[in-house]
Amino acid sequence: SRSINLAVIPGDGIGQEVVAEGLKVLSAVLPQDVKLETKDYDFGARRYHATGETLTDADLEQLKQHDAILLGAIGDPSVPSGVLERGFLLKLRFAFDHHVNLRPSKLLPGVATPLAGQPEIDFVVVREGTEGPYTGNGGTIRKGTEHEVATEVSVNTAYGVERVVRDAFARAQARPRKKLTLVHKNNVLAFAGHLWTNVFNKVAREFPEVTTDYIHVDAATIYLVTDPGRFDVIVTDNLFGDIITDLAAAVSGGIGVAASGNINPSREFPSMFEPVHGSAPDIAGQGKADPTATVLSVALLLRHLGHDAEADRIDAAVAADLTERAGKPARSTSEIGDALAVRVAG
Amino acid sequence: SRSINLAVIPGDGIGQEVVAEGLKVLSAVLPQDVKLETKDYDFGARRYHATGETLTDADLEQLKQHDAILLGAIGDPSVPSGVLERGFLLKLRFAFDHHVNLRPSKLLPGVATPLAGQPEIDFVVVREGTEGPYTGNGGTIRKGTEHEVATEVSVNTAYGVERVVRDAFARAQARPRKKLTLVHKNNVLAFAGHLWTNVFNKVAREFPEVTTDYIHVDAATIYLVTDPGRFDVIVTDNLFGDIITDLAAAVSGGIGVAASGNINPSREFPSMFEPVHGSAPDIAGQGKADPTATVLSVALLLRHLGHDAEADRIDAAVAADLTERAGKPARSTSEIGDALAVRVAG
Ligand SMILES: CC(C)[C@H](C(=O)O)[C@@H](O)C(=O)O
Ligand SMILES: CC(C)[C@H](C(=O)O)[C@@H](O)C(=O)O
Repeated sequence: SRSINLAVIPGDGIGQEVVAEGLKVLSAVLPQDVKLETKDYDFGARRYHATGETLTDADLEQLKQHDAILLGAIGDPSVPSGVLERGFLLKLRFAFDHHVNLRPSKLLPGVATPLAGQPEIDFVVVREGTEGPYTGNGGTIRKGTEHEVATEVSVNTAYGVERVVRDAFARAQARPRKKLTLVHKNNVLAFAGHLWTNVFNKVAREFPEVTTDYIHVDAATIYLVTDPGRFDVIVTDNLFGDIITDLAAAVSGGIGVAASGNINPSREFPSMFEPVHGSAPDIAGQGKADPTATVLSVALLLRHLGHDAEADRIDAAVAADLTERAGKPARSTSEIGDALAVRVAG
Repeated sequence: SRSINLAVIPGDGIGQEVVAEGLKVLSAVLPQDVKLETKDYDFGARRYHATGETLTDADLEQLKQHDAILLGAIGDPSVPSGVLERGFLLKLRFAFDHHVNLRPSKLLPGVATPLAGQPEIDFVVVREGTEGPYTGNGGTIRKGTEHEVATEVSVNTAYGVERVVRDAFARAQARPRKKLTLVHKNNVLAFAGHLWTNVFNKVAREFPEVTTDYIHVDAATIYLVTDPGRFDVIVTDNLFGDIITDLAAAVSGGIGVAASGNINPSREFPSMFEPVHGSAPDIAGQGKADPTATVLSVALLLRHLGHDAEADRIDAAVAADLTERAGKPARSTSEIGDALAVRVAG
């Protein structure tokens, strides 16, 4: 479409700084005739302290009006652990049915990795976003006593698993290597594991060109450091996806460059795009944060909205910029944003 | 005590080969006056195919008579995924209340790691072994239909968490750095997370010399590849422990050298010691398997039974042997076992 009506949630800590650069690059890359409208929302620690609210029904109604959401980061040490994560981030993912949590990992030339020998890394994790152990099901009895019992229930449905598995197969089909790996722990988590494996094998029949395999989540962490090149597309559950995408980000250039999309492919609700990193309060306000992950998240956003050429321009600009960074003194948040904006406009 | 009555379970694939070397080193290290008795058990794929049994009540009665158990590896592609894992390995861990699953990670000089720059790695993971998502609680409705729902219930008790947390604090207290890190996901898994965090903080008061911190499991995987030296002792739940110990093994020399103990500290039931690796059917019977992880598991076994000097001798022999291996042609399973046996006897 020729206009983008964007909800912007800078959030806490470095969120403010990196989102400003993301928007800078977005404005620079869009052709004249695409109208960009943005509206800022003040979710996060400040709003929570002022009102006690994290994300209300009225907020959700407003957010629904937008084509997409760009999020910086949410979280602050002044708020008890979990309050904003569950009250804002997970609430939004669930409310807008963001069942495809997309996290690409690509190690670009010249980018530092903790792995020896600069291996080739270019894969995408499709993490389920609305089920599994993230549903908040479970409970506690005899809280605080020596007889306390706390349970967490991982909920997995054929409906929920099938749609994300099908999405992952389609993404694998569209890539040159056409390979999809299911990551789970089906030898131990047999109920959920059977469902995932069964659905995976069923959907595989619709994609005869896609090569498939299965790896336990523990073994997957080994491959991610010893042979990350074996992965093309990975599909996995919400919690395993959370864990392996942090590791994937670490080995492929760090969370400074790791982008993600919380996607509702049906477009019934707006999708949300965010860097994988957190609010990093220790470096907030100092112009030290790397906005690259946010800029790459903007590329995912553009691709989701059908602006593929512009998304490609951002990816290319980031690749070129990262290659040039090696060995140079660190630049500030806005210097990196400026450089990327110049590149995508050029 | 001056005798060791050991149950030996070679198991499947390379299990046979590596256990033979473990026993070779064990015999060599023990002083003349310690009587070693061993009895072999044929658990694993062969027995399962022959009888349909994995581990019966009668088996458990027999195993109970021993001071400890040495396991090679269980698992074969001819057996459906999960049957032997749940029917044998997990059944044994639960039946003998192996609540301390101990997995040390130490990168020895000269040993190859996928990480750049040969970082210092020397930590121990204390993984809970009898609770969490491993209990087999949960179920399936409408199996095989498009309306299937599968659940997995993570069960966490104050009793179960406190005993393993206390064990981990004691281990941290006994190490030079005296540092203990709790790994969980308490911002999302709030019921279990609250219990773990609360118990951890409570027990911490009994160990004022131990420095503590908390890390989410996803972030822990990042630190394991970017700053593994930050860890001294880690305590975590059954599933998180499964995942991070495979990664820990990978970064600290590979699963060829990763040992583990499934420990019942009360000694009510025999503890079981096993390499972290699996049965590796692809290289079974070829004399290619590295028995080092099994030999190091024998050291954990000796330490558990109070033979600390002998355990130290094995650790030293392995360290010396690993340092010498670098750059040399690969030796066979029995050549490595022979070399270690000579060293510990010398
Ligand atoms: C902040 C937290 C709730 C979140 C998650 O666990 O999904 C984060 O780790 C992520 O990966 O986006
Ligand atoms: C084989 C499997 C059941 C087991 C586990 O998940 O505990 C293994 O991965 C391990 O870590 O010992």
